[in-house]
Amino acid sequence: MQNFEETDVSQAILDGYYKKFSQALRSDVVIVGAGPSGMVAGWQLAKAGRKVVILEKRLSPGGGIWGGALGMNEVVVQESALAILTEAQVRYQPAGDLFTADAMELASALCLKAVQAGVIILNLVGAEDICVRAGKVNGVVANRAMLGDSLPIDPLVLSARAVIDATGHEAVLAQCLYRRGLIDDRSVVGEGPMDAPAGEQFVVENVQELFPGLWTTGMSVCATNGGPRMGPIFGGMLQSGMKVAQMIEAELGKA
Amino acid sequence: MQNFEETDVSQAILDGYYKKFSQALRSDVVIVGAGPSGMVAGWQLAKAGRKVVILEKRLSPGGGIWGGALGMNEVVVQESALAILTEAQVRYQPAGDLFTADAMELASALCLKAVQAGVIILNLVGAEDICVRAGKVNGVVANRAMLGDSLPIDPLVLSARAVIDATGHEAVLAQCLYRRGLIDDRSVVGEGPMDAPAGEQFVVENVQELFPGLWTTGMSVCATNGGPRMGPIFGGMLQSGMKVAQMIEAELGKA
Amino acid sequence: MQNFEETDVSQAILDGYYKKFSQALRSDVVIVGAGPSGMVAGWQLAKAGRKVVILEKRLSPGGGIWGGALGMNEVVVQESALAILTEAQVRYQPAGDLFTADAMELASALCLKAVQAGVIILNLVGAEDICVRAGKVNGVVANRAMLGDSLPIDPLVLSARAVIDATGHEAVLAQCLYRRGLIDDRSVVGEGPMDAPAGEQFVVENVQELFPGLWTTGMSVCATNGGPRMGPIFGGMLQSGMKVAQMIEAELGKA
Amino acid sequence: MQNFEETDVSQAILDGYYKKFSQALRSDVVIVGAGPSGMVAGWQLAKAGRKVVILEKRLSPGGGIWGGALGMNEVVVQESALAILTEAQVRYQPAGDLFTADAMELASALCLKAVQAGVIILNLVGAEDICVRAGKVNGVVANRAMLGDSLPIDPLVLSARAVIDATGHEAVLAQCLYRRGLIDDRSVVGEGPMDAPAGEQFVVENVQELFPGLWTTGMSVCATNGGPRMGPIFGGMLQSGMKVAQMIEAELGKA
Amino acid sequence: MQNFEETDVSQAILDGYYKKFSQALRSDVVIVGAGPSGMVAGWQLAKAGRKVVILEKRLSPGGGIWGGALGMNEVVVQESALAILTEAQVRYQPAGDLFTADAMELASALCLKAVQAGVIILNLVGAEDICVRAGKVNGVVANRAMLGDSLPIDPLVLSARAVIDATGHEAVLAQCLYRRGLIDDRSVVGEGPMDAPAGEQFVVENVQELFPGLWTTGMSVCATNGGPRMGPIFGGMLQSGMKVAQMIEAELGKA
Amino acid sequence: MQNFEETDVSQAILDGYYKKFSQALRSDVVIVGAGPSGMVAGWQLAKAGRKVVILEKRLSPGGGIWGGALGMNEVVVQESALAILTEAQVRYQPAGDLFTADAMELASALCLKAVQAGVIILNLVGAEDICVRAGKVNGVVANRAMLGDSLPIDPLVLSARAVIDATGHEAVLAQCLYRRGLIDDRSVVGEGPMDAPAGEQFVVENVQELFPGLWTTGMSVCATNGGPRMGPIFGGMLQSGMKVAQMIEAELGKA
Amino acid sequence: MQNFEETDVSQAILDGYYKKFSQALRSDVVIVGAGPSGMVAGWQLAKAGRKVVILEKRLSPGGGIWGGALGMNEVVVQESALAILTEAQVRYQPAGDLFTADAMELASALCLKAVQAGVIILNLVGAEDICVRAGKVNGVVANRAMLGDSLPIDPLVLSARAVIDATGHEAVLAQCLYRRGLIDDRSVVGEGPMDAPAGEQFVVENVQELFPGLWTTGMSVCATNGGPRMGPIFGGMLQSGMKVAQMIEAELGKA
Amino acid sequence: MQNFEETDVSQAILDGYYKKFSQALRSDVVIVGAGPSGMVAGWQLAKAGRKVVILEKRLSPGGGIWGGALGMNEVVVQESALAILTEAQVRYQPAGDLFTADAMELASALCLKAVQAGVIILNLVGAEDICVRAGKVNGVVANRAMLGDSLPIDPLVLSARAVIDATGHEAVLAQCLYRRGLIDDRSVVGEGPMDAPAGEQFVVENVQELFPGLWTTGMSVCATNGGPRMGPIFGGMLQSGMKVAQMIEAELGKA
Repeated sequence: MQNFEETDVSQAILDGYYKKFSQALRSDVVIVGAGPSGMVAGWQLAKAGRKVVILEKRLSPGGGIWGGALGMNEVVVQESALAILTEAQVRYQPAGDLFTADAMELASALCLKAVQAGVIILNLVGAEDICVRAGKVNGVVANRAMLGDSLPIDPLVLSARAVIDATGHEAVLAQCLYRRGLIDDRSVVGEGPMDAPAGEQFVVENVQELFPGLWTTGMSVCATNGGPRMGPIFGGMLQSGMKVAQMIEAELGKA
Repeated sequence: MQNFEETDVSQAILDGYYKKFSQALRSDVVIVGAGPSGMVAGWQLAKAGRKVVILEKRLSPGGGIWGGALGMNEVVVQESALAILTEAQVRYQPAGDLFTADAMELASALCLKAVQAGVIILNLVGAEDICVRAGKVNGVVANRAMLGDSLPIDPLVLSARAVIDATGHEAVLAQCLYRRGLIDDRSVVGEGPMDAPAGEQFVVENVQELFPGLWTTGMSVCATNGGPRMGPIFGGMLQSGMKVAQMIEAELGKA
Repeated sequence: MQNFEETDVSQAILDGYYKKFSQALRSDVVIVGAGPSGMVAGWQLAKAGRKVVILEKRLSPGGGIWGGALGMNEVVVQESALAILTEAQVRYQPAGDLFTADAMELASALCLKAVQAGVIILNLVGAEDICVRAGKVNGVVANRAMLGDSLPIDPLVLSARAVIDATGHEAVLAQCLYRRGLIDDRSVVGEGPMDAPAGEQFVVENVQELFPGLWTTGMSVCATNGGPRMGPIFGGMLQSGMKVAQMIEAELGKA
Repeated sequence: MQNFEETDVSQAILDGYYKKFSQALRSDVVIVGAGPSGMVAGWQLAKAGRKVVILEKRLSPGGGIWGGALGMNEVVVQESALAILTEAQVRYQPAGDLFTADAMELASALCLKAVQAGVIILNLVGAEDICVRAGKVNGVVANRAMLGDSLPIDPLVLSARAVIDATGHEAVLAQCLYRRGLIDDRSVVGEGPMDAPAGEQFVVENVQELFPGLWTTGMSVCATNGGPRMGPIFGGMLQSGMKVAQMIEAELGKA
Repeated sequence: MQNFEETDVSQAILDGYYKKFSQALRSDVVIVGAGPSGMVAGWQLAKAGRKVVILEKRLSPGGGIWGGALGMNEVVVQESALAILTEAQVRYQPAGDLFTADAMELASALCLKAVQAGVIILNLVGAEDICVRAGKVNGVVANRAMLGDSLPIDPLVLSARAVIDATGHEAVLAQCLYRRGLIDDRSVVGEGPMDAPAGEQFVVENVQELFPGLWTTGMSVCATNGGPRMGPIFGGMLQSGMKVAQMIEAELGKA
Repeated sequence: MQNFEETDVSQAILDGYYKKFSQALRSDVVIVGAGPSGMVAGWQLAKAGRKVVILEKRLSPGGGIWGGALGMNEVVVQESALAILTEAQVRYQPAGDLFTADAMELASALCLKAVQAGVIILNLVGAEDICVRAGKVNGVVANRAMLGDSLPIDPLVLSARAVIDATGHEAVLAQCLYRRGLIDDRSVVGEGPMDAPAGEQFVVENVQELFPGLWTTGMSVCATNGGPRMGPIFGGMLQSGMKVAQMIEAELGKA
Repeated sequence: MQNFEETDVSQAILDGYYKKFSQALRSDVVIVGAGPSGMVAGWQLAKAGRKVVILEKRLSPGGGIWGGALGMNEVVVQESALAILTEAQVRYQPAGDLFTADAMELASALCLKAVQAGVIILNLVGAEDICVRAGKVNGVVANRAMLGDSLPIDPLVLSARAVIDATGHEAVLAQCLYRRGLIDDRSVVGEGPMDAPAGEQFVVENVQELFPGLWTTGMSVCATNGGPRMGPIFGGMLQSGMKVAQMIEAELGKA
Repeated sequence: MQNFEETDVSQAILDGYYKKFSQALRSDVVIVGAGPSGMVAGWQLAKAGRKVVILEKRLSPGGGIWGGALGMNEVVVQESALAILTEAQVRYQPAGDLFTADAMELASALCLKAVQAGVIILNLVGAEDICVRAGKVNGVVANRAMLGDSLPIDPLVLSARAVIDATGHEAVLAQCLYRRGLIDDRSVVGEGPMDAPAGEQFVVENVQELFPGLWTTGMSVCATNGGPRMGPIFGGMLQSGMKVAQMIEAELGKA
């Protein structure tokens, strides 16, 4: 017979989560969205020694990776992104000039790498707004998924030196700024029709600090600049996450 | 400018998924449910050289791990299960006589271990019935999540030498047998009230071949034998998955 | 410029439907469910000169054919059912010892054959009960789909010399009798676990007059006798529809 | 006893669908929407030797035909469209200066003609966006119905030399272009009030290549040019499909 | 310019409803369900001088009358019920041996007759339980529709010397007694299959005091005694309401 | 034992409804919405000998009358509207300078008066668009409630010399014209804040022919001209219906 | 045995509510929304002798207080608001420079203080519009929650000398004015991004009479002036309610 | 300008809730349901020095009090319960032999009394099961409302020396025991029909320890013993809560 009380289990979880959430309140970088680019960005920034928090409104991280295309759980990457797969210890197979990987393997490996590099992932927590003080984004207004959506329940704030909008097509945080007239119309035009090769290039080249303190990565890069959609190829996503990490690391290093 | 066609991406995914699904049609072991015990069982059986398929009706594997307790994403394990964490390279911290681990880390590590050991995970695929021939379970009747629930769409079959019901409280496959009178009432009594230490022991000790060809692991062990619930402590789950793997390996080895 | 009034169009539809529905009120055979066996049964009985009505609660006939398995729109038949495909002018390809056909082709061809043989199909009309007089089923209680489900709206009756329950797993009409104790428990046990070869044989061999005036075909044969499920193979379905047509034709010929 | 395995059935379906879907990835013409004009267009283009794919988001093709008007399953056509009915072997009856046909017969006959002429119909697949490269539409971004709507699942692409928007009132593909400013406001004004004779003429006369590579047919002709609605008369729909087929055939023949 | 305040309107409604509801708290007869038999019963009892309250959970009284059959708003009555139509000043036309009336006319005329005879109709008020004291039903437990269903809101009670269950197929009040074992199994068997002539006779002949203080009328007569369904013919309904009124009047006259 | 067949009942309803609907296809006036002003308008026009059809999307006519205010089923009218109550034989009581009536009595009396004056009410039929030919509204595009909303089912047309938009706040038909630019912005501004005395006056004074062939009555008068809301006082509604009837009668008399 | 009748209970509730609602029809101040600022405003105005009514669409007052942040039921206040807590007899604890209180204690204490000071709270009653006469707001158009949302049921009016919009982010009443062009665009810009210290100051300083007769308090102050959000700190809310009470008291005192 | 950081607010809430929840894990008494009897029981036990936790699945405590009857927010109590109102400082008015109080006042006062006496109320936390060890209930299995209902998320445990089922009609905890055969059928018969005087007496007299460690109070007393319903009179509820507090206090005092 094992020898413990149910409340020992409850207490251990409560203590662990309290400590984790407390640490998450103030960090170097808060990333909203645990899809491929958000997780790569988090992983790389944590590897560089930054304190990183990822907020994910769903129960599990991974975003669009798990479903491949149409629910067929395979993903495609180009040669230029193989280095990231290799670093993440994800296996791949050639498919013509492209490469495929198992979607379950890629999603779980990126999550594991990020967490083991020190990223705090808070799942079931979504961003409902953004903090701006003195003309600079300095935090994210977050709420508990499903509670905050349907009941009058207040959010709380996680502050950071840099915030990344990795929310994909919706570009949730950019919309928060646009709605208040803080960024202009041309900055949130929505993504263009699909042109995958062009999109893959665009999503990496146009990573930027959209507004002081707010960076975009992945599909939110296209959504805020009218870049083309690219479909179920993930190389650009991964490289976009890598690039935003490098740019923020450079910026934080300056300070 | 990158140089590929969108249809190259489509084709690569279609080819990869077709090949994966074809292989999954006939295997040694089909496991229904990608929660903690199902994934440990799959991982261990694949490591032993068996061809293993896990069906998961949700988009992502991991079951109840991601949410910890009440959405606080920490999990608890006992000392007896630390070896499994260690083998999965999951970090843990002491908490009194117990240990805690990050839920995101455990869920993603188990998935990654299973897939890299060779398990095929088919997500968005649920079991809607079971195959019985000559008094023995020899396959699972599976359907596409969300399509098969609401439209008159036929399922297909994945056959296996052994089938594991890792569907948790619902014990979906056991219910399929019970409904037809193939197992008696005492076999599907539902789980008992919570008594975590007793439950942790029960879920390991009572792993069994419930019906020729059908094995239970995890909470479906309790659900089919009236064992106590145990709450957000995962040691028993992990060890139950380990045990069913060992028992099936022994059985398959005989044949 | 074309020369007609919108109300000419309205009037033509109203006239055509009124005439069709009026004819449908009294027929030789009412079939509930426009799936594969119901449509084959209707086609064959109409070909033999009987006045046949098929009620279908959905917008389109075809039942489970359109979706193949998991939405992959191919269907499988065995050699014994190729004659029916040939008569329906549906093309097929060998696949090992089995044969495949395009789901769209099979569904539309069966519908077209039935209608051109003289069957009246009333879609968006479901059966909510059955008529029994002097110990014999003599009609079906039908209602308009979506209206009758959610508003207090009365049904009407379509009478017939024979009624066929082709409603599949649910065996709707058989349940109406069972609920009133008019057929005993053993007659509505629900279908058994899947055993496709056994099921394919069962669904043809056990076609029967379940209660005076009420016949079963297709999956309702299994559902009312505990026969095995058979999955996305349609030979048995088609032959079951052929057989119930022959048995009813023989019966009606006697009278 | 029949002699086959359930997995033989599964394998045959998987093989058949994989082959069909692979062929569909690259075609001459992709038509979105399997309503009356889409199916006539597909049938005629396939008859002319073109490789044609129709995407349909619902389970069954046929669109608004099955329901006639208000669910009264009769349809009306004018004299000018009788030739198409005759070619499709659909029976009709005079009704004043107009003609009526059974809705079930027309829907199933058009589907059967299209498929037997070689059209690949992929049902449960909807268009969520469009591909544009070098100022020309060259494909459709498609997703699995019901999965892609509610889960973060990526689409894939089917490329073609010509794409037809046969999505009816919604003019889904035209909206994709309009939203990005690629076609101007006057091109997507929505359909006008009903004037059936005028509408019947408009829907045929205004078939056009709306944007390089994108053609409209059926109600999307009215929706993109402000043409009048026409109600449950199908002659214009059928002739519109015929006309777009002829125009595209002429265009493809040039290349 | 008219000369009144909005609150004068509010006050007048509040006063009128308060007075009406107060009077309704204690009456001779409470009828649950404002369908055809409930309204005839209320009308006749009020005409005889009794204080009568009808509770109707929907916004409008009339029950199944408005929809005729399948939403075709005509109803049928037999010769034996013409006297009631005549008294209600409802017009009818012969149809073979039967008679038809406009559904809108019958529903509104019965409502108007009942109200003008003095019946208080409380709409949007449903019965959720029954009051029993000293072995006799002496009231109905009522709640506000839509509020009481989904929020924890208490009901109130309307007491009466006699209560009529006119809730149709569901026999709501009879179920309240059956659930507590106050009436036996044979009393709530649910209605039988349809046999309209037999049902029309049954629903009149079997009107009864099911339990001291609780009477049934209309379809709840069939539902509590296993009588046959009768479909969209309303003669039996009307006569059943007439009969329960006569029986209760006789009973109350005794006291 | 009564002596009829269930199909006699079905046939009688089918015949009656077919005849009624056929007559409704071509009329003098089609009124959309069976609320207080629509029903008064219909009643008065039918009394004057016009052929009138009212379409009502809900199961029962009466609109907002049944619910009084907040579900308290009393309504208020002013002295100026008492003549209409008197003609409708509806009882009223003084309440200060105003008068109250029972909501059930008013709703059922108006419906009964309209039907007995010859109005055809088609319930469960809603307007989804409008017909315009040669710059004049000449009919309404109608569909079956609940079917036409959620399935791709075509509407049909009811033509008339005059059409009345009695759809209340939504002003459904006016919106159809506005959406196409056929009436200008100032014509559909939505109703203003509440000012009941002013609103009561406005809703009568501003009855108008909004567009050739299309008239407004009741709240759609306010909605199309920015008139004030007036709340649960029905005098203006009734008088507005009376006035539109007089204006149309004058207009039709001219022709 | 206790000695009362169920209808005595019903009568007592009916009498009490009738009396309360009648009194509420005409008051000095109607406040829409029973959140923290609305309840403080009501409490203070009632304490000053004004007749005050609060409308709350939910079942219970308290608004966002009960849920603290993310459902963690603690709230934070600053030193400047401690006087209000003290007056409300709510306990607090220091937390750095801030103070925390139990959410359940604050919500229930504010409600109790308001009611015991004489405020009438009508729960389950929401505002659907506003009354304006002679350029001044003079009442609120209210409806029963859940009934008025989904059925065509009329509202009624509660008049007052001053109306407070305490509906939070939505600023429901201000929107009613803005929609009619009665206040200009700059008055309803929605709240800005979060800046809690600035927001706490803004929500107090910018309390105003937005339009003659309509005052804002709490988050509707920010929503109508573009002030910053402030999150789960309630000091500003409480002080904003205090301030609007003082301003209205001053205004009413003048009259 | 105020001087604090948003994360100070977040931290204060996190700290406060963590401390509160930690304390709640181990208590003397856990009460499930914050309705009238649960809150009185909690208040009285805390006043006696016991450590008490109340779990409430909804956002706000108060249960059925807020809604009075049918949403009319008045409640009734008898003379025997006035002492409790007096102790809670709730005002009341005579109404015949009964007394009425404002529902808002009673609900908020009970909540405030409980909290200020030391009760910890955890809202948005529901009980999904019960803990039983060595034949005695020793805790409650709780989950986060809305998360635990729809996602696979584990609960945690709150242990106590005594547990009270104050869940009303549903008797949630008693059902957990009954489902496992730990209490017999007669113990969970559901409440009887309404007989308010008898019910008011029953709910006090039959308070009991239903199973070692599990007590019932309020409507769950009736539900587990077949006692009569009593409707919107709250005296029995309050006295039942008082009594269970006294009985448990006596029991805990013994230990």
